[in-house]
Amino acid sequence: MPLFTDLLPDHPISVEHAMRIAGDAAERARGTTRPNPPVGCVILDTAGVPRAVAATEPAGGPHAEAQALAAAGDWASGGHAVVTLEPCHHQGRTPPCTGALVQAGVTALTFAVADPNPIAAGGADWLASRGLDVTRGLLAEATANAALRPWLHVQATGRPHITLKTAATVDGRAAATDGTSQWITGPAARRRVHVDRSRRDAIIVGTGTVHTDDPRLTARGADGTPLGNQPLRVVVGRSDVPQDAAIRAGGKRFLHLPTRDLTEVVAALTERGIMDVLIEGGPRLAGAFLRADLVDAIESYIAPAVLGAGTTTVDTGVENTIAEITRFRTIRVDRLGDDVLIRAVRGADD
Amino acid sequence: MPLFTDLLPDHPISVEHAMRIAGDAAERARGTTRPNPPVGCVILDTAGVPRAVAATEPAGGPHAEAQALAAAGDWASGGHAVVTLEPCHHQGRTPPCTGALVQAGVTALTFAVADPNPIAAGGADWLASRGLDVTRGLLAEATANAALRPWLHVQATGRPHITLKTAATVDGRAAATDGTSQWITGPAARRRVHVDRSRRDAIIVGTGTVHTDDPRLTARGADGTPLGNQPLRVVVGRSDVPQDAAIRAGGKRFLHLPTRDLTEVVAALTERGIMDVLIEGGPRLAGAFLRADLVDAIESYIAPAVLGAGTTTVDTGVENTIAEITRFRTIRVDRLGDDVLIRAVRGADD
Ligand SMILES: NC(=O)c1ccc[n+]([C@@H]2O[C@H](COP(=O)([O-])OP(=O)(O)OC[C@H]3O[C@@H](n4cnc5c(N)ncnc54)[C@H](OP(=O)(O)O)[C@@H]3O)[C@@H](O)[C@H]2O)c1
Ligand SMILES: NC(=O)c1ccc[n+]([C@@H]2O[C@H](COP(=O)([O-])OP(=O)(O)OC[C@H]3O[C@@H](n4cnc5c(N)ncnc54)[C@H](OP(=O)(O)O)[C@@H]3O)[C@@H](O)[C@H]2O)c1
Repeated sequence: MPLFTDLLPDHPISVEHAMRIAGDAAERARGTTRPNPPVGCVILDTAGVPRAVAATEPAGGPHAEAQALAAAGDWASGGHAVVTLEPCHHQGRTPPCTGALVQAGVTALTFAVADPNPIAAGGADWLASRGLDVTRGLLAEATANAALRPWLHVQATGRPHITLKTAATVDGRAAATDGTSQWITGPAARRRVHVDRSRRDAIIVGTGTVHTDDPRLTARGADGTPLGNQPLRVVVGRSDVPQDAAIRAGGKRFLHLPTRDLTEVVAALTERGIMDVLIEGGPRLAGAFLRADLVDAIESYIAPAVLGAGTTTVDTGVENTIAEITRFRTIRVDRLGDDVLIRAVRGADD
Repeated sequence: MPLFTDLLPDHPISVEHAMRIAGDAAERARGTTRPNPPVGCVILDTAGVPRAVAATEPAGGPHAEAQALAAAGDWASGGHAVVTLEPCHHQGRTPPCTGALVQAGVTALTFAVADPNPIAAGGADWLASRGLDVTRGLLAEATANAALRPWLHVQATGRPHITLKTAATVDGRAAATDGTSQWITGPAARRRVHVDRSRRDAIIVGTGTVHTDDPRLTARGADGTPLGNQPLRVVVGRSDVPQDAAIRAGGKRFLHLPTRDLTEVVAALTERGIMDVLIEGGPRLAGAFLRADLVDAIESYIAPAVLGAGTTTVDTGVENTIAEITRFRTIRVDRLGDDVLIRAVRGADD
């Protein structure tokens, strides 16, 4: 249903600009579409004016292309469909998008990322054979590392995509030695954390964090009200999670995995169709995921502050040498008030 | 002598744009001008085209305004002088800049920061009384936090301005547990460290760093050749600095202060006319400066990497609580390859 019309200029735009808008729409659908990928689609009319933008609806609902075509109506005829992922070409719960594009009279298609799923792929070739002017791979790398990344990762590896979140001072402290940490980052960063949670399938913490901090880990707005999508909240570790732990509140989207075996953890999440996981701490659980080479991306909030002592965000508890460093490629750096958010991903060949 | 003509567009520009160019020129003169402040000046002709840009020469040489006026020649007549600091109005080693501006026929003056020095101040009022159109405070805050900041700090406090440099992974590690650290940051960040050194008056490290790493701490180009300006290299701590320590090489710009009393350290630097100091480590010396509330700014290089164990960049070695956090205001965030450089300053009221 969300058509994101706030994203649309009312004048002709470039196809690249349209792709960025499609990417923004996909970003807003993250966390709601599984098992489908969050895809964004913009329809440009014959003059290049964007007439509709849409993203994938929750599973069973229409794909981005079908929604955008419906919203564009007659403007789609002779128009250009700009999509973050190659349109699907098979009958699933919904009819194939390729047919819908032809029926609507669209004459050009640009997409960013090819569909890696052999069952759904072939859409671009089929549309080209029907006479559409097809452009492949526009902003492919940036798009593949944004909203689509977890779904692509699942297609490629068969397991969920795991992001490690850290929030610390420039000297790497997440808390003072007495455990206090409110607040190291500022309000803009804290708001972003909640929006980010609402776009994940699952959030994981260790039992240590539950026992020490008793966090709710829900996704809330600035006024404390819950955001639309709430991720599954997962606690990992053999100790009990107290019956009155805050993380249990807010309904059944809670799971305790009483193990330290991360292979079991990944299997349990895969089984539940989880694609996009955020590790929110603490340092020992984060360290265990790091050592198991199960961190696919990092989102690091850095506050311009120094503590000089206190706990770090990641703690493997074992000796190391510099060659064991785990490196990521920076894909985006944002300022959030005085704080900085660095997003970086593991490369395919890291 | 350096006129930075590479900084000049050949078409009319806004006064704000001219101020940014003046700021860039000042930045390049950092570390060479003491006891004078590094100032930048651009002369716009009657049509608004920049005709000259210059920065303060080493002490005894001309101020930025005199240099820029000389380079602009007849273009200055009827023109606009854009300067980062209010022009001086007293006879020092050089004649007052105010007189030079009037003599050159300049009809407008814009400056960013008022001269806080009572002996040199009053230039703007005098120029206005001579009929110049004077604008005060353009980009004042940004300019006061850039090249001018150390000099302004000395005027206000009587002691050098001290910047703490950190370079670490997102989890705050400057080295692995075995002490290895080559290389956490990438080539662009390492090049920036050397350029930064060449613009400081002094660099400080603790004896621990000298004994463990034996660094040279010179400012070198990508090919290893020394950059133009070499800062004073200072080692602090009671232990000896070995006669064959690398930090002693490269001439007499080396100083060992055999003390742990940072008041003594600051006094020794003040006495030598040092205005701009960079602390390059190690963690214990950095921690001592932090606890003494002697850190005025931070420059933090963050690599998109995780180590999970190893030394931190700052280590006070004492217990703390979150209220003891030292906060800074972010003034600039840059990407250097995959790394991020955060520059932040203490506020006047922090
Ligand atoms: N400032 C922040 O952003 C932030 C965020 C989170 C936490 N924290 C801080 O972190 C501290 C808690 O630290 P922590 O390290 O104890 O918390 P933790 O990492 O959340 O929990 C550690 C526990 O995780 C369990 N675990 C599951 N799998 C594991 C594995 N493969 N290896 C090791 N442990 C595994 C173990 O529990 P069992 O013993 O039950 O098996 C272990 O004791 C608190 O002080 C909290 O404030 C800070
Ligand atoms: N990766 C990096 O960017 C980087 C940069 C620098 C250092 N490091 C690492 O840091 C490690 C060295 O650590 P460190 O902490 O021993 O080095 P440090 O901070 O350079 O040196 C500590 C020494 O500083 C002296 N000192 C002077 N004033 C002091 C004060 N007020 N309080 C405490 N100490 C004072 C003391 O020396 P005396 O005992 O002689 O009085 C003390 O032992 C090395 O492993 C090095 O690799 C890393």
